[in-house]
Amino acid sequence: KVFAGTHLIIEVVDGIGLDDQARIEQAFRDCVDTCGATLLHIHTHKFSPQGVSGVAVLAESHISVHTWPEIGYGAFDVFMCGDAQPWKAVDVLRAAFNAGDVRVKELLRGDGLVPHG
Amino acid sequence: KVFAGTHLIIEVVDGIGLDDQARIEQAFRDCVDTCGATLLHIHTHKFSPQGVSGVAVLAESHISVHTWPEIGYGAFDVFMCGDAQPWKAVDVLRAAFNAGDVRVKELLRGDGLVPHG
Repeated sequence: KVFAGTHLIIEVVDGIGLDDQARIEQAFRDCVDTCGATLLHIHTHKFSPQGVSGVAVLAESHISVHTWPEIGYGAFDVFMCGDAQPWKAVDVLRAAFNAGDVRVKELLRGDGLVPHG
Repeated sequence: KVFAGTHLIIEVVDGIGLDDQARIEQAFRDCVDTCGATLLHIHTHKFSPQGVSGVAVLAESHISVHTWPEIGYGAFDVFMCGDAQPWKAVDVLRAAFNAGDVRVKELLRGDGLVPHG
């Protein structure tokens, strides 16, 4: 099957620590390592009174998050091309935020658009 | 309907200028303005021999892209919460890259997870 990359839409539900920039940044770094990816750039932003947004640019695409700590919800994306293994990020995120539930949708980006090499 | 934000998965097909960091950054800024969003942080990375990744952190969530200029393909995401109007980004991106086709999938992030206030 030919596509450009695997994009996981990850809903972290009933999580803790979702207002903690350092915890989120560490979770991103752990995802990168566990999935076999390469980190190029990372940035997080803390909102007032609560909520964090974060992005990590990878050699293989990106990870992002937006959190609603007041309801224990985090909207994560893990998008990776090539030999990296994005599905391994799911357990990393579940553990990092002690999530009660994690829901994952897989999108194959460029599916049907990317020609055979 | 209660959800955290609208996340558009946008496949730009048969586009030009997808190896041009400045063009991509300008397109992001134009999306932010047109959609009524607020830019907090922007970063792009040029790959060798080709390809650009870019992320923009917004007060309303994020925009991202990964491009494969050699086949005219760009994998864009436009994720916005609140009063911003993410669907307005589609025509901005179509014009910015003179796209032959643009395919859009809408995800309602947090749908069914976010309680009534």
